[in-house]
Amino acid sequence: MNEYCSHWHLQAIVSQLYKVRNQWRTRNGRVSREHGGRELPSREAVLRILELLRCALFPMRLGPVNLREKGEDFYVGHTLNVALNALLAQARLELRYAACHMTDNYNEVDSLAIHLIQDFALALPSLRSLLDTDILAAYQGDPAARSVDEVLLCYPGVLAVIHHRLAHHLYCAGLPLLARISAQIAHSVTGIDIHPGAQISPSFFIDHGTGVVIGETAIIGERVRIYQAVTLGAKRFPIDKHGQLKKNHLRHPIIEDDVVIYAGATILGRVTIGKGSIIGGNVWLTRSVPAGANITQAGLQHDD
Amino acid sequence: MNEYCSHWHLQAIVSQLYKVRNQWRTRNGRVSREHGGRELPSREAVLRILELLRCALFPMRLGPVNLREKGEDFYVGHTLNVALNALLAQARLELRYAACHMTDNYNEVDSLAIHLIQDFALALPSLRSLLDTDILAAYQGDPAARSVDEVLLCYPGVLAVIHHRLAHHLYCAGLPLLARISAQIAHSVTGIDIHPGAQISPSFFIDHGTGVVIGETAIIGERVRIYQAVTLGAKRFPIDKHGQLKKNHLRHPIIEDDVVIYAGATILGRVTIGKGSIIGGNVWLTRSVPAGANITQAGLQHDD
Amino acid sequence: MNEYCSHWHLQAIVSQLYKVRNQWRTRNGRVSREHGGRELPSREAVLRILELLRCALFPMRLGPVNLREKGEDFYVGHTLNVALNALLAQARLELRYAACHMTDNYNEVDSLAIHLIQDFALALPSLRSLLDTDILAAYQGDPAARSVDEVLLCYPGVLAVIHHRLAHHLYCAGLPLLARISAQIAHSVTGIDIHPGAQISPSFFIDHGTGVVIGETAIIGERVRIYQAVTLGAKRFPIDKHGQLKKNHLRHPIIEDDVVIYAGATILGRVTIGKGSIIGGNVWLTRSVPAGANITQAGLQHDD
Amino acid sequence: MNEYCSHWHLQAIVSQLYKVRNQWRTRNGRVSREHGGRELPSREAVLRILELLRCALFPMRLGPVNLREKGEDFYVGHTLNVALNALLAQARLELRYAACHMTDNYNEVDSLAIHLIQDFALALPSLRSLLDTDILAAYQGDPAARSVDEVLLCYPGVLAVIHHRLAHHLYCAGLPLLARISAQIAHSVTGIDIHPGAQISPSFFIDHGTGVVIGETAIIGERVRIYQAVTLGAKRFPIDKHGQLKKNHLRHPIIEDDVVIYAGATILGRVTIGKGSIIGGNVWLTRSVPAGANITQAGLQHDD
Amino acid sequence: MNEYCSHWHLQAIVSQLYKVRNQWRTRNGRVSREHGGRELPSREAVLRILELLRCALFPMRLGPVNLREKGEDFYVGHTLNVALNALLAQARLELRYAACHMTDNYNEVDSLAIHLIQDFALALPSLRSLLDTDILAAYQGDPAARSVDEVLLCYPGVLAVIHHRLAHHLYCAGLPLLARISAQIAHSVTGIDIHPGAQISPSFFIDHGTGVVIGETAIIGERVRIYQAVTLGAKRFPIDKHGQLKKNHLRHPIIEDDVVIYAGATILGRVTIGKGSIIGGNVWLTRSVPAGANITQAGLQHDD
Amino acid sequence: MNEYCSHWHLQAIVSQLYKVRNQWRTRNGRVSREHGGRELPSREAVLRILELLRCALFPMRLGPVNLREKGEDFYVGHTLNVALNALLAQARLELRYAACHMTDNYNEVDSLAIHLIQDFALALPSLRSLLDTDILAAYQGDPAARSVDEVLLCYPGVLAVIHHRLAHHLYCAGLPLLARISAQIAHSVTGIDIHPGAQISPSFFIDHGTGVVIGETAIIGERVRIYQAVTLGAKRFPIDKHGQLKKNHLRHPIIEDDVVIYAGATILGRVTIGKGSIIGGNVWLTRSVPAGANITQAGLQHDD
Repeated sequence: MNEYCSHWHLQAIVSQLYKVRNQWRTRNGRVSREHGGRELPSREAVLRILELLRCALFPMRLGPVNLREKGEDFYVGHTLNVALNALLAQARLELRYAACHMTDNYNEVDSLAIHLIQDFALALPSLRSLLDTDILAAYQGDPAARSVDEVLLCYPGVLAVIHHRLAHHLYCAGLPLLARISAQIAHSVTGIDIHPGAQISPSFFIDHGTGVVIGETAIIGERVRIYQAVTLGAKRFPIDKHGQLKKNHLRHPIIEDDVVIYAGATILGRVTIGKGSIIGGNVWLTRSVPAGANITQAGLQHDD
Repeated sequence: MNEYCSHWHLQAIVSQLYKVRNQWRTRNGRVSREHGGRELPSREAVLRILELLRCALFPMRLGPVNLREKGEDFYVGHTLNVALNALLAQARLELRYAACHMTDNYNEVDSLAIHLIQDFALALPSLRSLLDTDILAAYQGDPAARSVDEVLLCYPGVLAVIHHRLAHHLYCAGLPLLARISAQIAHSVTGIDIHPGAQISPSFFIDHGTGVVIGETAIIGERVRIYQAVTLGAKRFPIDKHGQLKKNHLRHPIIEDDVVIYAGATILGRVTIGKGSIIGGNVWLTRSVPAGANITQAGLQHDD
Repeated sequence: MNEYCSHWHLQAIVSQLYKVRNQWRTRNGRVSREHGGRELPSREAVLRILELLRCALFPMRLGPVNLREKGEDFYVGHTLNVALNALLAQARLELRYAACHMTDNYNEVDSLAIHLIQDFALALPSLRSLLDTDILAAYQGDPAARSVDEVLLCYPGVLAVIHHRLAHHLYCAGLPLLARISAQIAHSVTGIDIHPGAQISPSFFIDHGTGVVIGETAIIGERVRIYQAVTLGAKRFPIDKHGQLKKNHLRHPIIEDDVVIYAGATILGRVTIGKGSIIGGNVWLTRSVPAGANITQAGLQHDD
Repeated sequence: MNEYCSHWHLQAIVSQLYKVRNQWRTRNGRVSREHGGRELPSREAVLRILELLRCALFPMRLGPVNLREKGEDFYVGHTLNVALNALLAQARLELRYAACHMTDNYNEVDSLAIHLIQDFALALPSLRSLLDTDILAAYQGDPAARSVDEVLLCYPGVLAVIHHRLAHHLYCAGLPLLARISAQIAHSVTGIDIHPGAQISPSFFIDHGTGVVIGETAIIGERVRIYQAVTLGAKRFPIDKHGQLKKNHLRHPIIEDDVVIYAGATILGRVTIGKGSIIGGNVWLTRSVPAGANITQAGLQHDD
Repeated sequence: MNEYCSHWHLQAIVSQLYKVRNQWRTRNGRVSREHGGRELPSREAVLRILELLRCALFPMRLGPVNLREKGEDFYVGHTLNVALNALLAQARLELRYAACHMTDNYNEVDSLAIHLIQDFALALPSLRSLLDTDILAAYQGDPAARSVDEVLLCYPGVLAVIHHRLAHHLYCAGLPLLARISAQIAHSVTGIDIHPGAQISPSFFIDHGTGVVIGETAIIGERVRIYQAVTLGAKRFPIDKHGQLKKNHLRHPIIEDDVVIYAGATILGRVTIGKGSIIGGNVWLTRSVPAGANITQAGLQHDD
Repeated sequence: MNEYCSHWHLQAIVSQLYKVRNQWRTRNGRVSREHGGRELPSREAVLRILELLRCALFPMRLGPVNLREKGEDFYVGHTLNVALNALLAQARLELRYAACHMTDNYNEVDSLAIHLIQDFALALPSLRSLLDTDILAAYQGDPAARSVDEVLLCYPGVLAVIHHRLAHHLYCAGLPLLARISAQIAHSVTGIDIHPGAQISPSFFIDHGTGVVIGETAIIGERVRIYQAVTLGAKRFPIDKHGQLKKNHLRHPIIEDDVVIYAGATILGRVTIGKGSIIGGNVWLTRSVPAGANITQAGLQHDD
């Protein structure tokens, strides 16, 4: 009879949730703010923006069905316009959020947002060129790849690099939160976790990719190839005199040109892997190696 | 001319699929049931419920754009109402499904469902408090984290823990299938696979996270920090006299307070990692270690 | 005042993107093609087709809420019809794409597409039978599994195998791009990367699954069980006299019946793991092992 | 600065709206009911059900693109199944709503709902036959019609009659609210307002249709043709001794076979328009006319 | 071969459309404006706002399925919050649009928008009270009506009055464009065209409604009942000395309390229909009539 | 218990519906056709195409929020491209449908479709110019109109004319079914039913509009203004010697320049209303009138 009865004690639960939120806000020194838009950028908005940018960069292959070359420029122009306007709105949210402890001068913040996104827009053609090198590297680096188009359509490593190159630009421009969200969207889809701060040169290829972690201060040279579950991480973090982790120091590896790192290898700390080195699967490295090195797991001749 | 012709032999294929389904049902002892709703809860429904609960728990940061504090309680109350009604429907499905081999007394089952979801609702404020400790732990545990909000918005480990704490409540309440679906949704998005049976204390943080596996009977203390690809698993499973795997015995590790486990470490079996221990990357452990231990891969001084 | 001003220099950026696309096309020897549909199959279309096929194969458990057995065949027939028509369209795109360097004879290509999808449709009942063995294997292989339905609803390993068995049929039929897209969709959701070329016998089970990689030429026997982060990969790839990776040679392992491979194990190259062997966690193997072998990490008695 | 400030005084407005709702409920003798589903059927649900029924009745012309005759029965069966299940849920709501002042015996109500919808389902083939006569009548009755398919696809009068024939069945079955909602959906789309109680024989055609009103107790013979803005209405309503309008007495016209009524004609009251009569445009009639009559506006020879 | 070829000469057509737009803009004295949001409010946005307001005003009957009285206030509060924020954004657009020929002082405009929408929000409870009188009037005025709920759910006249009472408030508040859009949405759905300027007292009922037109300066008393195709319009419009229609003078009828106007009646000009009058169907009136009059078509005794 | 039981006798009903469909097809001389796409264009597709065309013609006022003049041409080009490709597909369906009784030569039909849509595309700029005259006419013809933008956004008469001018082009091009569907979409939304064959000169305005009917062979001059419920129709249709209505003869009025026709007027037959005439409300006319005539209802001085 009362089959759909639902005594949820809603009023009580809502009140208690309010109290818990207030405790959190008090503890984190937040004042109640009536003004201002949403405090934080939206993951859904960034997701949509990145879809649009991917389509605008590769219109015939990732864009809408039925697109023809005659209509390509119109599509690219319109898609960019939508994406950039939306990105501007998110950039404004991040800058206001970052500024809120300092000043209420939203006009400056908004001018800055426009400036940053203009620069981002102007960089897109060269980002596309860069990505073309990555796609070619993927095609050439995997014997199972049948065409450059298959690589663009299917390879998670390629998706991760597209997101990274866009996110890295945002990161350098002073929009680290948008950059991070972009990176995490790729992480969620591919299992590849590249911090947007990482500096990566052209012709970069990650195969399979699940479990790859590349840290904030890592530097990667040209024509580097990496397999699944490779970590370019930090060793234990130094702790400051207050017992807090020290932030923002150089703590991830430098990988020079033409290095190959096989699956499951872990390289930790600010070490340098010399040009052309080969790091075998599952290798655990916390020291630098010279150019041309061939490091394998102890006692296992990998290339027998 | 007949360019869209499609001779799919549909009737034949449908008949054969029917036969195969019947073989399966016969083999698994299922009677044809005319009555009853859908036999199984719906993954899509659970996905939606969890989105709503996340929004209700963190309305200003995960809720809709344009929400202001004045409207927060209305939003939270309405969202909870929708989520709890939907969860009740799913709980009813699971309980009916579980009961179907025993009894047809749906009235009892439906009363039980209401009772369970009422308890779940009342637990939400304390779950939010618990999650706040996890968010702070993530912020404090990662030198790359810039704010608690970034952590909530971007970190897969935080999403996995939100799902886990909700799923664990459902698991303990006798709704293991809903709990499992909730956990697998997080697994799919984050690469972090926490069985909903695992018992996890406050201030838990998983960084990067891809490849983490935490088993059903694992117990984790306060302020534990874990990195990607860590397994807290079982050793080989004991087999009963019928040659079947024995189910439901304690087979996963106990991790005490303040332990840190670095990437790729594997801890198997009902062992205990003592308070404050540090387990190095890639370490393989099938024995207990005392409090304060510092375990590294053989032959590698990890903290040199 | 000019708060929404957006000087994106769209015309300039669009022109530069056009130039970059042209450079790419020139470098890759592509002629501008006015005719023809979209050059490439669509990931979104394949995603939708696979959802439909999963529902048609398991209508009562993955199909729509409220489906009853009386309506099952109608649902299955209609859903198959929609899925097969959509798959035919994608197959046509792939075949035209593959043929475009050779011939413009679209009629032959379109007849072939119909033929291939007819065969695919006829194979669905036996694919369902095969998948039933996998579901049973999952239920029997995991002590945490409570029912075969939970396994079908929740286990990423089961989803990955469903996609693989469909994708493998497409791969063998000469539609490797559709096969690859299908496989990558599963990879994205589960973290399990099975190349559609891999040959897998009945009763196959992958538990947890994140990080599993199974290569193109791998062969897997009956009743094999695999855990997370297992790689069945290639060793370093041979390079031909032009300095290019050699494609299409047999380079991945053969796993015989009843083998169990624990988490993190890596098996590389065209080696054979004998019937009934057990490969321990984190083991690194580049050589064959005989039937009944029990391989563990050096110095660690895994089954103590 | 406070550009998005929104002081809506929400709490106060919500409280006042609550008071107004309570006043309404008190005045209309409603008790607060905790149990029970939604009190009323949903217009959106009925809209969707009618779309499905239209598609199931005319699958090749109103159904999905790409349907082929091979797949027609599967489509029809599945679509009917979805539509009938949804209609059953709405019927249950209406019957519970109607019963709520009398009894709480929902079991009887639910059995009745199943019975009514079963009858409705069995009537569908004869309803389709009936509708085929209407479509032919439309084709033959309009010199601008080019094909029967155009008529089905484009003519608002045909849509209105499809809805009416379905709604009339529901009305006679004791589901007047669902019937009324169905009729009003057609009214909204076509401007044709046919009360579901009206009895209409085969081969009925309304051309243009906007502004047509056909009352609850109207009776219409075979092969009747009606143009826009025709009213078959009641004269002033009799009032009972309490000063209320008397409900449910026969108050609308009877139109015999083969009558044509031109645009804007108004026929009011329980009068009879004899077989084969022609009623001219804008004619105002409150009396019966014999068979074969040719009524025109005073002083205007319509067929000069 | 070139089956999908599409030589649309897009560039040429786009250029010509640009020229035509420029001609229009030049002729209408518009300057190119780089800044500012969209110039005009959005019909889609207003449509959505009105749906939300209808739901918030009648939550149990027009709101979401599964709403229960316990959750009603939360639903109402949240829905109002969303609706009012969206309405504020549209109000701002209208005010900026109206102001753009005068000033660029957006701050004043934005403050005004907040003020206007605050007033609108505060008026909602009394608007709901007013609408309750209309619903009762509909129930009492139609012998076919079975309940007040049917009336709210089905009657186009009730929908039109809900929109009108909201739109009239906006009109009086100085937001005539939003008001007009609201009215036209109702017009499109119901065929009832009430100018938002019309002043309508409580207990107003329009039956059937298609073709009703009520002009901008009409005034309607209490308990007035109107049928389909009734026009309360202007006579020919006076023309000023420049040959332009004179705008904004009182040109529509005044209908006093308790008047009934039957279908098709046309009343034109600033005439007064006295209290309690009955205007018969199809009557054409361009003069005032005294209280208690009973006007019928010449030569037709309507109430014989 | 068996609360959701649904014995729909689906198989029987589906079989009977199949029989009824077959009867219909046999009676209408249709052969079962395995090949070919859908037989008929899709109303939903045409609806979408017209939305796109409206947006492309009036991008800043009907297009997406946030469009700026810098991005206008990209938006217009892309939107046109999508709309024209979709229209081409629908045109192909109509032409194949029309051709199916004659020939199977789809190549000719498809070439023709391209040709027709190319012409349509090239006509768009002049159609926009024409529509600008209609918008100005609406603004100047209604004292309640406040701006040309309000007119474009709100006036149903303007929407009807936009659809008509596009539909008329399709009608003349030999695509009468697409034209008719376009017209009926406008009819449904506005209550204005203009046959796409009607020839209408510039600066045409319909106010209010509900109930307007304009027949297939009507001809309307420049600067004509029409009010609600005006019919420009045929008198009784001549019948040929087989007792069928004669199709395709000139049977609707010619309205010369500068005519005004007030609400409810009905003009029937191939009569001519002379330049500058005024036809009063509710007037019934079946004869021609000279230029400058002022026709009112008998005995009513309309302009007293």
